[in-house]
Amino acid sequence: MGSQDSQMKIVHGEFGYILEDVPHFNDYIPSLHTYPNPLRSNTAYSVVKQYFVDVDDTVPQKIVVHKDSPRGVHFRRAGPRQKVYFKSDDVLACIVTCGGLCPGLNTVIREIVCGLSHMYDVNKVLGIDGGYRGFYSKNTITLTPKVVNDIHKRGGTILGTSRGGHDTAKIVDSIQDRGINQVYIIGGDGTQKGAAVIYEEIRRRGLKVAIAGIPKTIDNDIPVIDKSFGFDTAVEEAQRAINAAHVEAESIENGIGVVKLMGRHCGLIAMYATLASRDVDCCLIPESPFYLEGKGGLFEFIERRLKENGHMVIVIAEGAGQDLLTESMQAANQKDASGNKLLQDVGLWISQRIRDHFARQNKMAITLKYIDPTYMIRAIPSNASDNVYCTLLAQSAVHGAMAGYTGFTVGLVNGRHTYIPFNRITERQNNVVITDRMWARLLSSTNQPSFLSPKDVNEAEKEKPPPTQLLDNGNCEDGRQSGKQADSNYGTKN
Amino acid sequence: MGSQDSQMKIVHGEFGYILEDVPHFNDYIPSLHTYPNPLRSNTAYSVVKQYFVDVDDTVPQKIVVHKDSPRGVHFRRAGPRQKVYFKSDDVLACIVTCGGLCPGLNTVIREIVCGLSHMYDVNKVLGIDGGYRGFYSKNTITLTPKVVNDIHKRGGTILGTSRGGHDTAKIVDSIQDRGINQVYIIGGDGTQKGAAVIYEEIRRRGLKVAIAGIPKTIDNDIPVIDKSFGFDTAVEEAQRAINAAHVEAESIENGIGVVKLMGRHCGLIAMYATLASRDVDCCLIPESPFYLEGKGGLFEFIERRLKENGHMVIVIAEGAGQDLLTESMQAANQKDASGNKLLQDVGLWISQRIRDHFARQNKMAITLKYIDPTYMIRAIPSNASDNVYCTLLAQSAVHGAMAGYTGFTVGLVNGRHTYIPFNRITERQNNVVITDRMWARLLSSTNQPSFLSPKDVNEAEKEKPPPTQLLDNGNCEDGRQSGKQADSNYGTKN
Amino acid sequence: MGSQDSQMKIVHGEFGYILEDVPHFNDYIPSLHTYPNPLRSNTAYSVVKQYFVDVDDTVPQKIVVHKDSPRGVHFRRAGPRQKVYFKSDDVLACIVTCGGLCPGLNTVIREIVCGLSHMYDVNKVLGIDGGYRGFYSKNTITLTPKVVNDIHKRGGTILGTSRGGHDTAKIVDSIQDRGINQVYIIGGDGTQKGAAVIYEEIRRRGLKVAIAGIPKTIDNDIPVIDKSFGFDTAVEEAQRAINAAHVEAESIENGIGVVKLMGRHCGLIAMYATLASRDVDCCLIPESPFYLEGKGGLFEFIERRLKENGHMVIVIAEGAGQDLLTESMQAANQKDASGNKLLQDVGLWISQRIRDHFARQNKMAITLKYIDPTYMIRAIPSNASDNVYCTLLAQSAVHGAMAGYTGFTVGLVNGRHTYIPFNRITERQNNVVITDRMWARLLSSTNQPSFLSPKDVNEAEKEKPPPTQLLDNGNCEDGRQSGKQADSNYGTKN
Amino acid sequence: MGSQDSQMKIVHGEFGYILEDVPHFNDYIPSLHTYPNPLRSNTAYSVVKQYFVDVDDTVPQKIVVHKDSPRGVHFRRAGPRQKVYFKSDDVLACIVTCGGLCPGLNTVIREIVCGLSHMYDVNKVLGIDGGYRGFYSKNTITLTPKVVNDIHKRGGTILGTSRGGHDTAKIVDSIQDRGINQVYIIGGDGTQKGAAVIYEEIRRRGLKVAIAGIPKTIDNDIPVIDKSFGFDTAVEEAQRAINAAHVEAESIENGIGVVKLMGRHCGLIAMYATLASRDVDCCLIPESPFYLEGKGGLFEFIERRLKENGHMVIVIAEGAGQDLLTESMQAANQKDASGNKLLQDVGLWISQRIRDHFARQNKMAITLKYIDPTYMIRAIPSNASDNVYCTLLAQSAVHGAMAGYTGFTVGLVNGRHTYIPFNRITERQNNVVITDRMWARLLSSTNQPSFLSPKDVNEAEKEKPPPTQLLDNGNCEDGRQSGKQADSNYGTKN
Repeated sequence: MGSQDSQMKIVHGEFGYILEDVPHFNDYIPSLHTYPNPLRSNTAYSVVKQYFVDVDDTVPQKIVVHKDSPRGVHFRRAGPRQKVYFKSDDVLACIVTCGGLCPGLNTVIREIVCGLSHMYDVNKVLGIDGGYRGFYSKNTITLTPKVVNDIHKRGGTILGTSRGGHDTAKIVDSIQDRGINQVYIIGGDGTQKGAAVIYEEIRRRGLKVAIAGIPKTIDNDIPVIDKSFGFDTAVEEAQRAINAAHVEAESIENGIGVVKLMGRHCGLIAMYATLASRDVDCCLIPESPFYLEGKGGLFEFIERRLKENGHMVIVIAEGAGQDLLTESMQAANQKDASGNKLLQDVGLWISQRIRDHFARQNKMAITLKYIDPTYMIRAIPSNASDNVYCTLLAQSAVHGAMAGYTGFTVGLVNGRHTYIPFNRITERQNNVVITDRMWARLLSSTNQPSFLSPKDVNEAEKEKPPPTQLLDNGNCEDGRQSGKQADSNYGTKN
Repeated sequence: MGSQDSQMKIVHGEFGYILEDVPHFNDYIPSLHTYPNPLRSNTAYSVVKQYFVDVDDTVPQKIVVHKDSPRGVHFRRAGPRQKVYFKSDDVLACIVTCGGLCPGLNTVIREIVCGLSHMYDVNKVLGIDGGYRGFYSKNTITLTPKVVNDIHKRGGTILGTSRGGHDTAKIVDSIQDRGINQVYIIGGDGTQKGAAVIYEEIRRRGLKVAIAGIPKTIDNDIPVIDKSFGFDTAVEEAQRAINAAHVEAESIENGIGVVKLMGRHCGLIAMYATLASRDVDCCLIPESPFYLEGKGGLFEFIERRLKENGHMVIVIAEGAGQDLLTESMQAANQKDASGNKLLQDVGLWISQRIRDHFARQNKMAITLKYIDPTYMIRAIPSNASDNVYCTLLAQSAVHGAMAGYTGFTVGLVNGRHTYIPFNRITERQNNVVITDRMWARLLSSTNQPSFLSPKDVNEAEKEKPPPTQLLDNGNCEDGRQSGKQADSNYGTKN
Repeated sequence: MGSQDSQMKIVHGEFGYILEDVPHFNDYIPSLHTYPNPLRSNTAYSVVKQYFVDVDDTVPQKIVVHKDSPRGVHFRRAGPRQKVYFKSDDVLACIVTCGGLCPGLNTVIREIVCGLSHMYDVNKVLGIDGGYRGFYSKNTITLTPKVVNDIHKRGGTILGTSRGGHDTAKIVDSIQDRGINQVYIIGGDGTQKGAAVIYEEIRRRGLKVAIAGIPKTIDNDIPVIDKSFGFDTAVEEAQRAINAAHVEAESIENGIGVVKLMGRHCGLIAMYATLASRDVDCCLIPESPFYLEGKGGLFEFIERRLKENGHMVIVIAEGAGQDLLTESMQAANQKDASGNKLLQDVGLWISQRIRDHFARQNKMAITLKYIDPTYMIRAIPSNASDNVYCTLLAQSAVHGAMAGYTGFTVGLVNGRHTYIPFNRITERQNNVVITDRMWARLLSSTNQPSFLSPKDVNEAEKEKPPPTQLLDNGNCEDGRQSGKQADSNYGTKN
Repeated sequence: MGSQDSQMKIVHGEFGYILEDVPHFNDYIPSLHTYPNPLRSNTAYSVVKQYFVDVDDTVPQKIVVHKDSPRGVHFRRAGPRQKVYFKSDDVLACIVTCGGLCPGLNTVIREIVCGLSHMYDVNKVLGIDGGYRGFYSKNTITLTPKVVNDIHKRGGTILGTSRGGHDTAKIVDSIQDRGINQVYIIGGDGTQKGAAVIYEEIRRRGLKVAIAGIPKTIDNDIPVIDKSFGFDTAVEEAQRAINAAHVEAESIENGIGVVKLMGRHCGLIAMYATLASRDVDCCLIPESPFYLEGKGGLFEFIERRLKENGHMVIVIAEGAGQDLLTESMQAANQKDASGNKLLQDVGLWISQRIRDHFARQNKMAITLKYIDPTYMIRAIPSNASDNVYCTLLAQSAVHGAMAGYTGFTVGLVNGRHTYIPFNRITERQNNVVITDRMWARLLSSTNQPSFLSPKDVNEAEKEKPPPTQLLDNGNCEDGRQSGKQADSNYGTKN
């Protein structure tokens, strides 16, 4: 069986309806026993007459439609099912967190543990210590509702985390050896790719082990879903740094405040933080190339803005201007490794370039203050709305695994919780579409130059997936509304 | 023309598609002149090739669908149009805020002013002072981008507000006398009803005056839309009070912390604050009747929880238990007006009842601490996500008015900004559906009794609109998922 | 031996020097063995050559002096001594917290435990559960550095608390039975009086048990000391409520925001919160009588201020206007107990009186919003400066007990940590002196009436202790600077 | 007249009493007219019978005393005097802020303006724009109570600031030309030295112009005074960064969090932030030399702590380890200026050194996260206690200038507001005394090595001023309690 087939089941319906369904134990294990959902006898749920999600419920990906639009791609709605594929006592679940910190990790852990226990009477849950590598090299942590009771008030992850360390065979061996039959994997793009491979291997071995992903990315760069957990909290916390930069810049003649925010490939945090703050004069993101020198360049803009206002604030995403930075590094004397390594930090680099420019110019004495709040943002606990969001993501994952689904990630699509095939969220990345209205809003709010020649605009247009693909991948009608994230975010999130 | 017809235009399409469209100048003023949208020449927007919203874009209300579902009700997508119905210099806009405070009011004001100025070169904007009555009794406030530059960092409304004071004829006279041709009305249910009547009168007089509503309700009780601005901020701020109640309760034997939250008819803030906090033992809302004495009653539950845990936290929405309270008031000696008036505050009343019960019982000495954070919540500035949300609401309103739409309210529907006919948001209220999963989640999280007999459940079910109506009004497939708000909120918001 | 003698030892010196010394084991137990202080061999302290406090170090109470002033009262300086009166292994310490919550309780507990362990290798520490009554009716909590490691980040007290419940004989029996030989008592005025009695009984029985008090009062109403722990945090947190009241008041015509703050007998929190905020129009405290009706009364002032500014903020300490309130209660129909009980809350009462007045007047429609942040203030964790302050108080107590001192309370006097005899802090209360400069500063900042007739001023003057007594009790030169707290607070704290 | 004489007047009294008095107009201008203090007729102050500070009030610098101690150095108490040397209408005051940002600057500005206006009816106040250089190169800002009404809620300084730019003659010319007769100078060590020189020149020219300094230093490195304004706020805000570093470090195997805090010559912020937090494993300050390699070095300690706990947090003051850093720089290839310039940031440098060490060692893979919250700390508004403190400093300065004092700085000494001769606060710096108890407390709390050989300790001891000088300069009895700041800070502030 090809990887694509094992990862996604396509169902077609009337008026152009397409369902991209997630795998299920039934797909590769015959005649499994099922059990009535224990929620039936749960007092809390007993009043909810039609509590269970209808087996046919699906959610469309594109929802900006015309009178005559075909209905397009749909995902399976998340939620509890009438029948489950595990007896409560038989479940041994495990949870692993991978990659960088993100507000809400502990809430997701807490709610998987509490959801399993309170809704399904599942009381054997292990925490894998320190990311994927914890599967084969470390002891596990016993997780109970009591242990996790207060962890949502703390930042970070009580399970620890790490990057990489993924050896599929060893991980699946470990899962098999320990008798684990539900695996909850919280992590970003790379982690979800790893989860997909683990699921493939589990399926190859014919194991009844559910693999459920909860996508985590503070940058909000995962496609299809409305937004990732922790994003709101991050944008909120970024305001502190921007405020400080603004105060510093305002208090001195020709003061410049530079704030670096997260976003290696995707400037969404920088863009939303800028829009929320209203104190930013220039926002630089990976998706929008820019240049420093000459007409229409950054230096010229800085000079102009300083002359007008006497001060300015620049927000730069960590992945912005990588081409310029690489060039700079190559040009520089490479002998002193340490110093140059620091300059690979785009915030330090651009601060230095701006200082050097104005020192060289000798026309205008500037004072630049550089703030990098990255770790202060990542490490805070999630705010109230992210807390509720994490709860629902965790519960969706638990309902899905109990119902026999596997090889899926949970995700909010147009405000509804769904199960999404792994490949749909790993095959491309969400980011800011600079020919889209949201970015235009930002340009209008900061009044910064677009740093684009008409040629650039054309190319940016060309790089956008053609309409037919968007019809599959975007949740808008056609190429005009340009990609999922912008639309969905300015909607859902804002 | 009947009021219903003037408020909503129904368009039918294939496969059950229905568009509930908003009014437009063209509906009652013939052959109006149009102008190219000034955004065409705005540098910020020049790179956005297909910036303008397609005239046919609509957004479905129900999005949990089956393979064979008819397509159902849609709303017109918000956003800038190719043509506008006002010359920039001819516009005289005004803004009015009505009703109670809500985080984000100042951001909406700011962004209407900045949106009109930066996007459409409209520079004549008046602030009406102190709510509707400001139209005929007061001077106006001149609003410029400079005046509103920092107001989003402050709570409250710089325009002032009031309740009531609505005299349609006088207001429309004032609009006409001053030459105002765009009216932005920010307020709750009653205010939007008022806006609908103003629009009707404007239309009756045949005036080219756009009436645009921005729904404001901290309780989130406006139907159709995903959530109201300020709601996230309110839920976030409510955490402080719940935390304090928890600390107070925990520090003393048989400690009880009672927190009253907003919600006269709708317990959404109480429910979300409870779900976000995880420290609440009991959440009482208007939608879920409860009783104090006897088996299954609140007092019994309190006793049990205190015996188990030694302390507990109760969250009560201001409109909960109104029947009990009325009964109490009638029973009480009515002679001392002041004291009894206080007891009409449900938080003070229930605190007193609990104290009295345990004093009478004489079995268990309790210590109850009551916290009412209402005004501390209402008065804070909006958080970052509400800031961005307010910005987009304001811009949608501005785009709509410039494009000649009128008699509409802006609203987020399934994560997309839309224009909604007034009657759709005023004809019923959003609230917690206690037979729905979200409330079940809450019951499961607090482990509180449902206070419902099977009879109650049946009745609650019966009160729900029948499936056919839901097919029109809800954005779910059918009665089973029970109403818009629960579904949309656990999705969108969380 | 009389109580006074056993509580304080007076030593006289040159130029009017007086030392009011605290009791010591040596006073009533002959020929005790001493040990070298274990800090001598502690690596952290080994670099501190003259680490130990000189046996003769004392701190003056009055420090505003003239060229020819006599030197006046001094207290013994706190800190580690060369010799200790306990072997580390022999110590069994206990900690008890009594009375209402106050920010910093957990920090004090933590630092007594950590101080004993890290500085003196004392590892047997018990927590008494739920205040004084925990001595005879409850199990104890084992306290180790690990158990208390993170408690300073939480509000409240992990030991629980209660009011009253003091039976000296039973408590001392319990101390004796359990073999406890160091008792740390954290609590307010009443609690410290209880501690004094326990000390007397311990001494009567001839026990080698050190009784050390750490004064706790969020109101800052303990005399002699510069300020009590948690006070800064409380004033800081009160700003939120005042800000909210200000926003609410400003947003509506004739808006009045009323904030009730802590302070049964002492308006220091209200006064400092008012001074820190600058948004308050009127501050009412127990020390400054006021009246409602007629010329120069509160109602007249409210009317005037509303006419000038359109809105106003009133801060009222919980103990303000008790005479008026009692009068009101007596006048009212007493039949409805519950309602009237509520009116004994001065904030609810005054809000009702203001509403009634303006309703009766019928000249001016006001909107009043009442905020009671009491429990939200008490329950927060201490801020950084209170954290350090609590640490030093706890360490001083530990040093004192180890060094054989007993019957003392620790306290900051003119910025130096000292040991103070119990009777000096319980014999009178600290409060706002309304004929003092600090209150004048407040009047000047709010521009409120003094509500005083010249007669009142004279009487207030007369109530002040005569100069000769002040020379003993105050830390100012003479009656003119009027009492300790005002001077010390506007100095030390501010 | 020598500079020393013109800066300080020594008065001797009984029992070793010394008064180090500040200059007064009377010292160099004969027979000046005086006026009754306008506060006499101020209603707010009318109830304060003995409002005015007694002409003989002084405050001792040393207050840890023995029975037979001589009385030592005193300063003049601050506050309003019976007579003033300016007529209200004749006053033209100006305010200037110099040097780096510090929480509270705007509050000081606000309260000088409001103090002059509300207490003394002085309504002509100019703001000098952008520091000292604003005197000769820029327009001034008109300051009124209305203009400054809300500025205390904002960080930074509304006047702008700059470093250097001090040309005494030009400044005094400008003062003379504009007719300014009261100059309020807010700034650090260098700024106060500048103020002293300006005062000398004013005196030389025989002008009736009062020069009053308000010492500003976020580092708290100004001697004599208890603490500088903004310090509490800074320590509080530093907790965020330390918390984040702790969460990041804890979440990963061998995680190291490094936080750089302010303090070029003085580690007081680092020390207090460490003591308040309790999550720090190592605190490095300028006063305590350390070394990286070998036995007893930092690398060895990091290795040990990571093996014990798995993670650690390091706080480093910006001026720590300057000798090591200089050495490093000299050793490095100097060709790439930019990179090396960055490495002069001690936080970046030490992070790189630690990373390099463990990479070289190849035994232990570490993950280091570096946080520099400097500008986020400097830019916040002052907290409540700093707000009150700033108010009193500002009022003291105003009272002093009105009373004819000049050439003084205001300062809190042992909790009392005083006037201090300029030379006393500029002749040396306050810093952490590493042979003192406060530093021992820190070592004990972090359990870090002292990085000192016994030789170092001896030298540190020797560097301390000899007892006789301390008797003048310190406010402790003798060398044993080692210097003012430690004692005063652990007292006053904590």
